[in-house]
Amino acid sequence: MMDASKYSIGYYAPPVNEYRWVKKDHIEKAPIWCSVDLRDGNQSLVIPMSLSEKLKFYQLLLEIGFKEIEVGFPAASETEYEFLRTIIENDMIPSDVTVQVLTQCRDHIIRKTFEAVKGAPRAIIHFYNSTSVAQREQVFKKSKEEIKQIAVEGAKLVKKLSEEYEGNFLFEYSPESFTGTEPEYALEVCNAVLDVMQPTIDRPMIINLPVTVEMSMPHIYANQIEYCSDRLHYRDAVILSTHPHNDRGTGVADTELALLAGAQRVECCLFGNGERTGNVDAITLAMNMYSHGVDPKLDFSNMPHICEVYEEVTRMNVSCRQPYAGSLVFAAFSGSHQDAIAKGMNYREENHLHKWNVPYLPIDPHDVSREYDADVIRINSQSGKGGIGYILEKSYGYVMPAKMREDFGYRVKDVSDKSHAELKPDEIYSIFKEEYLNVSRPVEVLEAHFVQGDEIEAHVIARFGNQVHQIYDKGNGRLDAVSNALKQMLPNSFSLETYSEHSLDDGSHSRAASYVGIVCEDGHRAWGAGEDTDIIRAGIKALVSAINNQ
Amino acid sequence: MMDASKYSIGYYAPPVNEYRWVKKDHIEKAPIWCSVDLRDGNQSLVIPMSLSEKLKFYQLLLEIGFKEIEVGFPAASETEYEFLRTIIENDMIPSDVTVQVLTQCRDHIIRKTFEAVKGAPRAIIHFYNSTSVAQREQVFKKSKEEIKQIAVEGAKLVKKLSEEYEGNFLFEYSPESFTGTEPEYALEVCNAVLDVMQPTIDRPMIINLPVTVEMSMPHIYANQIEYCSDRLHYRDAVILSTHPHNDRGTGVADTELALLAGAQRVECCLFGNGERTGNVDAITLAMNMYSHGVDPKLDFSNMPHICEVYEEVTRMNVSCRQPYAGSLVFAAFSGSHQDAIAKGMNYREENHLHKWNVPYLPIDPHDVSREYDADVIRINSQSGKGGIGYILEKSYGYVMPAKMREDFGYRVKDVSDKSHAELKPDEIYSIFKEEYLNVSRPVEVLEAHFVQGDEIEAHVIARFGNQVHQIYDKGNGRLDAVSNALKQMLPNSFSLETYSEHSLDDGSHSRAASYVGIVCEDGHRAWGAGEDTDIIRAGIKALVSAINNQ
Repeated sequence: MMDASKYSIGYYAPPVNEYRWVKKDHIEKAPIWCSVDLRDGNQSLVIPMSLSEKLKFYQLLLEIGFKEIEVGFPAASETEYEFLRTIIENDMIPSDVTVQVLTQCRDHIIRKTFEAVKGAPRAIIHFYNSTSVAQREQVFKKSKEEIKQIAVEGAKLVKKLSEEYEGNFLFEYSPESFTGTEPEYALEVCNAVLDVMQPTIDRPMIINLPVTVEMSMPHIYANQIEYCSDRLHYRDAVILSTHPHNDRGTGVADTELALLAGAQRVECCLFGNGERTGNVDAITLAMNMYSHGVDPKLDFSNMPHICEVYEEVTRMNVSCRQPYAGSLVFAAFSGSHQDAIAKGMNYREENHLHKWNVPYLPIDPHDVSREYDADVIRINSQSGKGGIGYILEKSYGYVMPAKMREDFGYRVKDVSDKSHAELKPDEIYSIFKEEYLNVSRPVEVLEAHFVQGDEIEAHVIARFGNQVHQIYDKGNGRLDAVSNALKQMLPNSFSLETYSEHSLDDGSHSRAASYVGIVCEDGHRAWGAGEDTDIIRAGIKALVSAINNQ
Repeated sequence: MMDASKYSIGYYAPPVNEYRWVKKDHIEKAPIWCSVDLRDGNQSLVIPMSLSEKLKFYQLLLEIGFKEIEVGFPAASETEYEFLRTIIENDMIPSDVTVQVLTQCRDHIIRKTFEAVKGAPRAIIHFYNSTSVAQREQVFKKSKEEIKQIAVEGAKLVKKLSEEYEGNFLFEYSPESFTGTEPEYALEVCNAVLDVMQPTIDRPMIINLPVTVEMSMPHIYANQIEYCSDRLHYRDAVILSTHPHNDRGTGVADTELALLAGAQRVECCLFGNGERTGNVDAITLAMNMYSHGVDPKLDFSNMPHICEVYEEVTRMNVSCRQPYAGSLVFAAFSGSHQDAIAKGMNYREENHLHKWNVPYLPIDPHDVSREYDADVIRINSQSGKGGIGYILEKSYGYVMPAKMREDFGYRVKDVSDKSHAELKPDEIYSIFKEEYLNVSRPVEVLEAHFVQGDEIEAHVIARFGNQVHQIYDKGNGRLDAVSNALKQMLPNSFSLETYSEHSLDDGSHSRAASYVGIVCEDGHRAWGAGEDTDIIRAGIKALVSAINNQ
């Protein structure tokens, strides 16, 4: 039973809003990316990854170009501890990559965390405690001051241990459940932590303000980020980080607006995996920047491979509508979209454009290793002549005249409608062959010889049903002469209306394709296509196919 | 190969921005909802719906409460024409529901559309033409003025035919590809259409500014909407509509910010189905409002049924992370989240709260017919004692003491880790039974009789291995006396440390559950549980189980 009176707004707007972020129109520079796939992503899987699966995913993250990778919560999980020791002891952390480990602000957990990262070339110690109103009241039953003290004591211990243990440590603090916390109070806690840690420009500290649960519209989060960004101590020595979840379906928007509002770093997962509705999707964020001309500093050019590894190790599926990655995100089934895409692609080719601006395709599918033929224009009963003609042209080289494309479009849609199925390019080609190409029943021209004078004289040997005829006639061209000859043989007359022809392959062995449209006695049009190494024979076959299609 | 230099910003910011929308913090009232599932949603399916599937989906949309439903593009598709005729001729349109039909601004298509809606009690004629820079240049090769003329001529014909045909017609115009159009120009076209249609407050007209392809960050779209909203002619007689797609993963944000900026109506699909990355998801939008205490005027209380019908007729899957609807969106596998949820649920119960504010759960899963046990706290190797104890308590009624829960937590996580699988409540109960409950090897108490004096005296008949012993001893209570007696029989001593007990069922036939923790000679703790209709026997069984678990 739905009952809206059970709910009210559970977030806290900042006391002061300046809205400077709203005047910026796009993100100008890639943020620092931190993958949390192996931690937040992993902890939300029905079956968490095994050690070998984690290693495989870790390699993928390195290939994509992540330089900061949260590898786990080693004090809370044996597998995560083991994974961390494996990559440290086998020198699997490249020199430009920093691993990050998560720990609650609890004494023994912090100590075990330092043990776990021993020997890492560089590590971010990410400590956190929950600061939200709900958790203070319901879970910890502690005052604001007491909760702040947990963070301060945690910071002191982290600082102390970082001096005792050898290693190059960086630090991150998160007021967990930030989005359920009063921004003034979250700021107070962060500043208390910063006062303990005393970061410097040479050794900055990360302050992460997570959207642990998405509770507001995205512009409210941007306001919260701007408010905190303006008031954090040691601001020049702070890297302001964001970590959005997606409960309201606006995780990407949260992140993007937060980046306008002062955030400099993003914690994210591939394909938006993560707790509940997921962590914000790294791919969408990066590709959104890319589509605005900004180098995202992450490489998704081999998207099919990335999808494959991800699906294997996480046992999750990449949704077919997942931005930039799903199987249907470049697909156009509808006639008008297909027509515009086909025209846009041709326009792009003809004008040798470098900038991409094809209608209905936010990026060039080739950039992420997707194919135009297989992935973009796809044919079913919703499709139109433009798309169907485009497929036949791009996959098989046949360029039908516009009116014939219309006729063909209806035939293809009808097949799709009746079979209740999508049609692949080879099936479309089959329909074309069967319906139009070199159709030789009941009429077939067996031989045609020409004598050239003022007019062209044709000597035609043709079959009509089971009877073979020898016919002579004239015309203003070879095809016209053959056409006139055939009219002598046939019961119904017709007139030749449309003729076109093009070569199918390059080189001397090329075949020619011809298209003929005729108008029948009753006024309706019929179409045929012919294919032959000889252009005359191709034209005659097209004419005969059209006659046979009356 | 990714090459960001191929891209630049392809949208057009309005010439004037006022940013009034950014000062509003949430949506105060449900918009007019229009489902486009049967049209935009259908045309993006690999296999479009059949007539009977469309009818089934249409019924579902009515049940959910949609009052405006775009039923198709009847002039372009036989199935859509047939569907529309079916619901009209069989009186399947409730009196408070309006069907909407889409048509391009082309003469014969507009005429066929009016034919298709003949006899509908009320219909919205939705006409459109593309106005974007890319389509003007690449597809239509027409000037701004010529493109505007297409819209104006379309409007004139629509108006004329609406006077000729009988019926109660409303009108909608979309400058298609609005997000690739200069806002000033889109506004000029819309105003030219409005000047033809001359809507009145009694008979308003819908102007729909679609995010045909998502090209900008969501706040830019809000600026575009605010700009147009402020400048549309006949504004009081215009219903400003939005129709976002999701190419940048921010379709929900576009819609929500647009509603703050002046939009009054939303065209959307269930589960974000639709072209490419989909149309904006009706469910997320409605439930986002709901979670802020606003009645969305759509009913998603039977979400499992809605998922089932949707998956059947569209052949699509509801992603497990789909906000409010996916199978994992209320799930917590991680220990700290489970602990907070368990505490929050108990806090809610104890304090009889009406308002929902349980940590990590944006809404009460019961509101959308999801179960706490099966869908929320789910157990695998990432889980913690809090969640595991909670499941055992809520599903089977056992309330272990805190320290025993920790011991049990490790055992359960270990089973999950080794079997590499999620554990369901019955499997957790099995582990509990096997590990703790009424464990009777090697020690079993066969009989215990008591004599009450200053101290309690116990006469115990117990088995240890294959030998049965008769033992007498005293203690300050019954359990203490039995404990002392057993110590006589056993090779290693122990001390009784923790004891608790509760009833399992209501009523006189209720069983009691007891929990005992002992400290062994070497200092480690062992735990046992006992269950019996008699509270003394339950306690003795718990003690014996703990002894057997040493």
